[in-house]
Amino acid sequence: MSGDTKRSAADLGLPSRIQLIEVGPRDGFQMEDRFIPTELKVETIESLATAGLREIEAVSFVHPRVIPQMRDADDVMAKLSRTNDTIYWALVPNLRGAERALAAQVDGIHQVICCTETYNRKNVGLSIDESLAQLGEVVELARAEAGGRRDVVTAVTMAATFGCPFEGQVDDDRLVALALRLADSGVMQLGLADSAGLGHPELVRRVTAKIRHAVPQVSLRMHLHDTRGLGIANAMAALGEGVTRFDTSLGGLGGCPIMRGASGNIPTEDFNNLCLEMGLETGVSTEGVVAASTRIQSFLERPLESKILRSGTRQQLYAANR
Amino acid sequence: MSGDTKRSAADLGLPSRIQLIEVGPRDGFQMEDRFIPTELKVETIESLATAGLREIEAVSFVHPRVIPQMRDADDVMAKLSRTNDTIYWALVPNLRGAERALAAQVDGIHQVICCTETYNRKNVGLSIDESLAQLGEVVELARAEAGGRRDVVTAVTMAATFGCPFEGQVDDDRLVALALRLADSGVMQLGLADSAGLGHPELVRRVTAKIRHAVPQVSLRMHLHDTRGLGIANAMAALGEGVTRFDTSLGGLGGCPIMRGASGNIPTEDFNNLCLEMGLETGVSTEGVVAASTRIQSFLERPLESKILRSGTRQQLYAANR
Repeated sequence: MSGDTKRSAADLGLPSRIQLIEVGPRDGFQMEDRFIPTELKVETIESLATAGLREIEAVSFVHPRVIPQMRDADDVMAKLSRTNDTIYWALVPNLRGAERALAAQVDGIHQVICCTETYNRKNVGLSIDESLAQLGEVVELARAEAGGRRDVVTAVTMAATFGCPFEGQVDDDRLVALALRLADSGVMQLGLADSAGLGHPELVRRVTAKIRHAVPQVSLRMHLHDTRGLGIANAMAALGEGVTRFDTSLGGLGGCPIMRGASGNIPTEDFNNLCLEMGLETGVSTEGVVAASTRIQSFLERPLESKILRSGTRQQLYAANR
Repeated sequence: MSGDTKRSAADLGLPSRIQLIEVGPRDGFQMEDRFIPTELKVETIESLATAGLREIEAVSFVHPRVIPQMRDADDVMAKLSRTNDTIYWALVPNLRGAERALAAQVDGIHQVICCTETYNRKNVGLSIDESLAQLGEVVELARAEAGGRRDVVTAVTMAATFGCPFEGQVDDDRLVALALRLADSGVMQLGLADSAGLGHPELVRRVTAKIRHAVPQVSLRMHLHDTRGLGIANAMAALGEGVTRFDTSLGGLGGCPIMRGASGNIPTEDFNNLCLEMGLETGVSTEGVVAASTRIQSFLERPLESKILRSGTRQQLYAANR
């Protein structure tokens, strides 16, 4: 008596291959008060790569006074074994950060722009126009590096696409206009972020569809915080619109340094497990991610948000009741 | 700059009116080790009714040795103010329980049958055929009561529709066959339960569609545990299939007495908040539910699962950042 719980992705009208981008070592670790030693950062990143994650946002190159937890970014990058084919991303806030990131041999340069003036000023002290000019310079720098020596991928994430805690929800037309300007900058990937977890599935579906239609030339990447418990429902809505790239975080770590009340990202192990059960390929081992989360949970001495971390997978739940 | 976050339900192809059935006082309280005093039970149920919940599963009439927390079911029902138009449900395991429930003036009689023989035997010590016969007798009893004096609504929930921890996923055809037999018994409402939280959105979508098609004459009621963090995503899948009735639990309380690893229900405040933001009417005040959850959280002295309880609503997140 074991019914068909999986279907082929084509049957479901969903993409068949999902790319998870692990952002816990950056978005998650940066929110922790307790300094995570460089060795533990490296060990975690490498165990995530071993679990099958082929894109990992490993560090950010920000000023150590702003985000002290990332003060060892150079060291982390230097110590990472680069024998596997994992793409290591860095978040950078400006040209100086991008130069440091490229010197540290990152594979991907990720920038953020906020969808409202208030949030952008709080985040980087610039207007949206000023940020757009700066983003373009960084993309150019990465492109020059790529031309000279090796591939460097670029991404820009639109923070607060699905709700700004300072100004409310931005009109769809303005979001689309910003996406078009970003696509014109030459950036290869565009992130749509629910930075505060204010979105809901119908909002995500509608806005994602409009932006995807407006900028078909860039690859979309969803970044969905789970503040109100809607992270996975929102991801399902984006999946339904054909998005294949998702930021997730081991254990559900993460938050937002300048926004009250925001909580972590979609837990990598939870979303990976869901994808696998629905028959969508990720190449990632849920058990491998759980092992990394367990190690970090034990270091942080508090329970992480991931439900799979607490309950186990479907197979483990079956086994516990046999 | 405040974009359109709501749409009319018709635009979305979703039902416009959602009926929440609050099951925390039964499914939630029964799982707590600490005895919740009768007065606090009554106070909680009444504050949920005040918050706008028009259907509440208030108690179960089971043997006190099996579920000690429900030993005061008669008292709870006797003390409830019945001035509002709320439907108070009771869960009953057998004819004896149904007689007690009717004597206590409940408005709805809810029974459970498990979709696998193993689970059903563990739950009530009967085969599925034996349970079906007994369920029919209880439905007849409720109907006779209704004919004589007042309306009594009846529901049967199919436990483990979306995954049995003992036998795995039941074949769709067998689930549909069981639904047909239950509909033949004359029961008015049919619950589809993910008792252990083993389902995922595509499984829920597929099985719900098949059962809805097979028994259009009964109203479906979803009961989705959040063990693996998929409760709300699964509810969205059921909404997409036109289901309008959802069991939820204040704070996300709940579990399963005979299954290891199962965790609570979809939190009422989280799901209600989501429905309202998507423009679906529920008649329920999120703040009213949060007040009831806060009171119980403080009595239980542990954080409950609801995310809205922790983070606040969208409006509160905005306010905190102004």
